Amino acid sequence: MQTVKLALAGFGTVGTGLARILEENEELLFKRSGMKFTITSVLVRDIEKQRDYIPGPETRFTTNPEDLTADPEVDIVVELMGGITLAREIIIKAIKAGKHVVTANKHLLAEHGIELFKLAEEYGVGLYYESSVAGGIPIVESIKESLCVNKIKGMVGILNGTANYILSEMTTNGLEFDTALQQAQDLGYAEADPTFDIEGIDAAHKLVVLIRLAYGEDYPLAKLPTEGISKVTGLDIQFAREFGYRIKLIGQVRDVCGKLEAGIFPALVKYTLLLARVGGNYNAVRVEGNAVGPAFFHGQGAGALPTGSAVLADIMALTKVGKPNNTGFYSSDLKEADILPPEHATSEYYFRFNVADEAGVMASISKVLAEHNISIAQAVQKGDISGPNVPIVFLTHKARAKDVKDAIAKIDSMPFIAEETVSFRIL
Amino acid sequence: MQTVKLALAGFGTVGTGLARILEENEELLFKRSGMKFTITSVLVRDIEKQRDYIPGPETRFTTNPEDLTADPEVDIVVELMGGITLAREIIIKAIKAGKHVVTANKHLLAEHGIELFKLAEEYGVGLYYESSVAGGIPIVESIKESLCVNKIKGMVGILNGTANYILSEMTTNGLEFDTALQQAQDLGYAEADPTFDIEGIDAAHKLVVLIRLAYGEDYPLAKLPTEGISKVTGLDIQFAREFGYRIKLIGQVRDVCGKLEAGIFPALVKYTLLLARVGGNYNAVRVEGNAVGPAFFHGQGAGALPTGSAVLADIMALTKVGKPNNTGFYSSDLKEADILPPEHATSEYYFRFNVADEAGVMASISKVLAEHNISIAQAVQKGDISGPNVPIVFLTHKARAKDVKDAIAKIDSMPFIAEETVSFRIL
Repeated sequence: MQTVKLALAGFGTVGTGLARILEENEELLFKRSGMKFTITSVLVRDIEKQRDYIPGPETRFTTNPEDLTADPEVDIVVELMGGITLAREIIIKAIKAGKHVVTANKHLLAEHGIELFKLAEEYGVGLYYESSVAGGIPIVESIKESLCVNKIKGMVGILNGTANYILSEMTTNGLEFDTALQQAQDLGYAEADPTFDIEGIDAAHKLVVLIRLAYGEDYPLAKLPTEGISKVTGLDIQFAREFGYRIKLIGQVRDVCGKLEAGIFPALVKYTLLLARVGGNYNAVRVEGNAVGPAFFHGQGAGALPTGSAVLADIMALTKVGKPNNTGFYSSDLKEADILPPEHATSEYYFRFNVADEAGVMASISKVLAEHNISIAQAVQKGDISGPNVPIVFLTHKARAKDVKDAIAKIDSMPFIAEETVSFRIL
Repeated sequence: MQTVKLALAGFGTVGTGLARILEENEELLFKRSGMKFTITSVLVRDIEKQRDYIPGPETRFTTNPEDLTADPEVDIVVELMGGITLAREIIIKAIKAGKHVVTANKHLLAEHGIELFKLAEEYGVGLYYESSVAGGIPIVESIKESLCVNKIKGMVGILNGTANYILSEMTTNGLEFDTALQQAQDLGYAEADPTFDIEGIDAAHKLVVLIRLAYGEDYPLAKLPTEGISKVTGLDIQFAREFGYRIKLIGQVRDVCGKLEAGIFPALVKYTLLLARVGGNYNAVRVEGNAVGPAFFHGQGAGALPTGSAVLADIMALTKVGKPNNTGFYSSDLKEADILPPEHATSEYYFRFNVADEAGVMASISKVLAEHNISIAQAVQKGDISGPNVPIVFLTHKARAKDVKDAIAKIDSMPFIAEETVSFRIL
């Protein structure tokens, strides 16, 4: 019987989850693979720290990364520590020592993936990362294998459970953003510094990883337009509902005549779409291929066991492969994508103008929109709002991002505008 | 550059779809795999038949199966002809000739899979079948690879697009079953003899394949309780809607304390579940693992290109594997599952009694139900139905299948019962 020896860098939520699955499902794993899996060493910052889960005596805790990467017994190094400095060093050392690597680190892959994949190819080892995107949903494997025969027309996903939880609470329970965020923090869904989750940065990391898988090209993280949910108000969610939409934090990429249009942004999603029904801290991805049509995946995007399941799937896969399939492409030397300038992207839009309640306002706004080739599909003005100002909401037909930006800048300089205009895309 | 040579048995919808994807996505396939794919021979019944799609001159049409299985040039035999006699013979010959096989034939796999997987293991070749279940949805690969580290608590799916189309039309447009079936036939969604689709037989084939993948055990097709949709009426769909449910043809398997409970049956599905939102001829599968939690997959369950996409994914996978992974388990010698006797299965139920409009009826029915340990959760009796009889609808708490059967038999023998009682499970 073959034993696969694992070394873990980090033993937090996901590492513990992995160890628990290995123990709980040991018999099944043997029935599936004919192999046994052992964690031989675990890299931690503090060996003395109290832990909820204690692995068996075969596991040695260490504070020295060399105990993982330089141990000839270790087959696979599993990086679950996060961060991009030490994690990168450990992965590079493991690859150079001829070891396969499994990582959940989307931040590292988004920033340094190109370098790491090239190195892994050079050394002929696997660098697998199913757990880095959408937790337990097998989206990496699906794009790399099952859907790999498709030209990908586009992908759209809900890639951050924390942001989706906050928006869901705002929608379902009428909370304002700050209250919903506080609640997410109290429940442990959001971190003390929630910037990565609520500003779309975590989702951007994941989208960069997905774009590479789908197109075999690099969309540099620094170039990806990224907008979070901190500006979404209860009022906008209410207006969106009235028109039959939900507001979701969306990651999207589309092939527009050979150029990639991509970004992270809050958008209105029609109530009837499955994507609008993704609730709480769930994740989902919709992939549209030129052969398969639309394929939709939904599941838990985080958590010890779902993410541990994805990490272990990578480990199982690496024990079976001939030549590792890291990028999903024959060559791992990925070029930068041909990027559609974001200002050329077209979409339908939701605008909420907050204006003084006086004559001629609607006419003035409409005129500016028309001058910028923005055509109005639906409009609503509410008379029953207390205070001197009233919201006017427009839903538009397709318009160019640059025209929208210019038109809103012009409108926001007009005297009747009471506060900065809100605009979201409609999916 | 390596060329992979394919021989196709059958050149109908899916075969044509496969050929079109190979042509249309040739460049992408090379970028993914570094390989070229050619169809060298196609087995057809009639060489002279007019075809919508003509492959290139490298493809030879033949009526002799030996031209596929005995040709040393052929790497992979792709069986897309359907049926279980000739298809089985060709697959056996291909395996014995040391060729990998890709098939979309769920009927054959359900009936003869155990034999074929053992033979493939003996000869060390791949027998892959992603396209046999849920068309373009990568459910086979996902269970075999990405979710393989999970004990599967259960799966529930909409596995037949034709039945789902008929039920969707009945729900959305208020059609009766016969009209909706006729419409499905007119649109080419249902065949002239629609028995396999509407009686749940096709879905049963697929469920048997999924059960093997999830549990590594065989649930013999002949033992699988299978009920179709031909008894679903517009009235039941209307009542279900009023309680917040949709009626769907469901394939389900659950691990009940180590025994498998499985079946194909029409069931009420709560409106808020993603499964209830699967419309038209789409398919969906929800897998619940002990680590990953629930994972939901949705996509096109049939059609030339979606199914062709799945066939081609298998072909790509077989060009990369070391040891083929046919069953998802280390040994392909699958044993029969420990099956929960269907009469012991428990579920909530929907009952519609059609009764004479007279005093004491509700009391008599309730008494019989109580005697059989069936507890009522909701009830509705409509007074505004014309005619001498009225429908009474009950939704129950969990009850045993045997108790339900006995209670309904007793009730249906009572004098006030005007027609056979309708009962569906609630998911």
